Amino acid sequence: MQSADEKYMRMCLRLAVKGAGKVSPNPMVGCVIVKDGRVIGKGWHKRYGDAHAEVNAVASALKKVKDLRGCHLYVNLEPCAHKGKTGSCARMLTDMKPARVIIGCKDPYPPVNGRGIRILRNAGIEVNAGVLEEESRALNKFFMTFVEKKRPYVTLKVAQSADGIIALGNGSSKYITSESARYFVHKMRSEYDAVLIGRNTALKDDPLLDARLAGKRSPLRLVIDEDLTLPGKLRVFNDENADRTIVITSGSAKRGKQYPDVRRIHVRKSGRGLKIESILNAAWQEGISSILVEGGAGLFSSFVASQLFDDIYFMIAPRIIGRGLSAFEDLEIRRLDDAYRLALDRHYINESNELIVRYKNVYWNS
Amino acid sequence: MQSADEKYMRMCLRLAVKGAGKVSPNPMVGCVIVKDGRVIGKGWHKRYGDAHAEVNAVASALKKVKDLRGCHLYVNLEPCAHKGKTGSCARMLTDMKPARVIIGCKDPYPPVNGRGIRILRNAGIEVNAGVLEEESRALNKFFMTFVEKKRPYVTLKVAQSADGIIALGNGSSKYITSESARYFVHKMRSEYDAVLIGRNTALKDDPLLDARLAGKRSPLRLVIDEDLTLPGKLRVFNDENADRTIVITSGSAKRGKQYPDVRRIHVRKSGRGLKIESILNAAWQEGISSILVEGGAGLFSSFVASQLFDDIYFMIAPRIIGRGLSAFEDLEIRRLDDAYRLALDRHYINESNELIVRYKNVYWNS
Repeated sequence: MQSADEKYMRMCLRLAVKGAGKVSPNPMVGCVIVKDGRVIGKGWHKRYGDAHAEVNAVASALKKVKDLRGCHLYVNLEPCAHKGKTGSCARMLTDMKPARVIIGCKDPYPPVNGRGIRILRNAGIEVNAGVLEEESRALNKFFMTFVEKKRPYVTLKVAQSADGIIALGNGSSKYITSESARYFVHKMRSEYDAVLIGRNTALKDDPLLDARLAGKRSPLRLVIDEDLTLPGKLRVFNDENADRTIVITSGSAKRGKQYPDVRRIHVRKSGRGLKIESILNAAWQEGISSILVEGGAGLFSSFVASQLFDDIYFMIAPRIIGRGLSAFEDLEIRRLDDAYRLALDRHYINESNELIVRYKNVYWNS
Repeated sequence: MQSADEKYMRMCLRLAVKGAGKVSPNPMVGCVIVKDGRVIGKGWHKRYGDAHAEVNAVASALKKVKDLRGCHLYVNLEPCAHKGKTGSCARMLTDMKPARVIIGCKDPYPPVNGRGIRILRNAGIEVNAGVLEEESRALNKFFMTFVEKKRPYVTLKVAQSADGIIALGNGSSKYITSESARYFVHKMRSEYDAVLIGRNTALKDDPLLDARLAGKRSPLRLVIDEDLTLPGKLRVFNDENADRTIVITSGSAKRGKQYPDVRRIHVRKSGRGLKIESILNAAWQEGISSILVEGGAGLFSSFVASQLFDDIYFMIAPRIIGRGLSAFEDLEIRRLDDAYRLALDRHYINESNELIVRYKNVYWNS
């Protein structure tokens, strides 16, 4: 049985999700106001820069009641303590004097990080923090990673056959999985701030990397091109989303002429290529809170070797290919004990008989 | 809602399973006798060569009633029409005159194959055939394949990492999966008549191929050794089950001296190695109704190329290995459309976070 607190917190989480894809790099937040066991106000953060969830919920409640005295206010993330774009929510609440404020999880953003809770408590308001804490953190995993690790949340997405092949020896990888799996990927893309591909994948697949199958907004498209040698005719440089393509290149590279209108981010070169750490740092500076890495094997291997990733989706087609490329073949270990450990997290089967499995990176969890 | 017929047929299937691992290559059969809605007799085929399920059920019923007049007799496989080792069950039943005989599926064995049903009907007994037919056939899939396809049922078992690697480049494959997965494999082994491995796997892994972890009877161990060059010190040639090891070798090979006490089956050589068809035919001649193929990649590839297999189990460890061997790397296709199609059949997650997935070979189903 869930408690009443959990019930209303779950309502907050459902409201928060309405902001998915629109508030990044802000967190998704929902807020519910309850009086005498009845919900009298609801709100959520609708769009980056717009009013916070608490402000919207309070406005909706004030249509029904004169003030919040005696009310219980639920919110999945600690109310902000800083002025920011919209004023401090914690200060606003101290004025409203609800009887209790129930919070899902703390906001790790340094200007808040416990100060919101302290402001409320100092004003004599009862605060319960940590109701559905795990779910609340998971909902905003992009934001949490962005703030706590100072890098985007990174998901690797691998489409492979049952025998673990992502492309034939001749490079052909279109398409190993079905239209349903591709629909799923397009939906994922719409939830991430950016997708990232390596130079070879750009060259061989000439992908659009958009979310057209899901009818959703396309993510930023990050294309690694260390020496600016990719041909300018690639579709990511020319389609209607070309202004949402960013080339990641090393500082020493000369300014290429192939795709003059596309933005570039310069990162330091190191040894064999661009350092994953530098790429992620550059993305973080851009305010990118989540990246879906779509290959190829070289890039996948670098992410695993650097351990700078959060989870991996395997989309597994019910087929056997035989000889071919595997997803991480640039990684080399000497003993099986050195294999990179994952934790099986979720799986489901789509209508095309494909298994979609999500693994978490255990390294970061331990 | 299941009908009464389905209820009693399910009881037959449960009884039949008690013969698992003991009746091969005979089918597993259970029989239930019902009078006035009460079960008055039960029986199952207990051991190869022993009495059939119907005989045991009738004997148990006759302790409670004088004869079977008015009874309903349920059995998951058509009663035999031939004398065989134990007399014709269909003839025995015509003498007993039950009111109805309800049958799961027909027995494809040529001396029966519908004749059992005809004998009953000709004697004026009402016969319902095909109650839980699919389940009845699935229960005896080894037997059905053995009779209908004149070869053993073949399952490939692949232990791999999430990225589809079965061994490191240096050949090391001990152990990719956990003890729980190995326990599962030992249980599987005890359910198959035989396991089969290629020469390289015998040499590199020196496996026992028994069912010790499950505390069950070990299967026959078939080892391919085309030219009888495997060293005699391998454990399958020397352990306490050595009398259950059979070497499969080509007719032209000279009689090796390495393991003089181990049985050999000679099969025709053809081109690059022994033909899968010939191996399976030899096993069929031996009365082997099911084979679990445990590698390596060469043997797996040959089975898929020949399309002479029924299903594949992938045991997927939550790890990334990177560069290494994949299960079917001796197969080569030119276009992704030529990939071998499978049908996802079952999957489950064991206590060690490993995904175990069973695919059926679609080729045989279409």
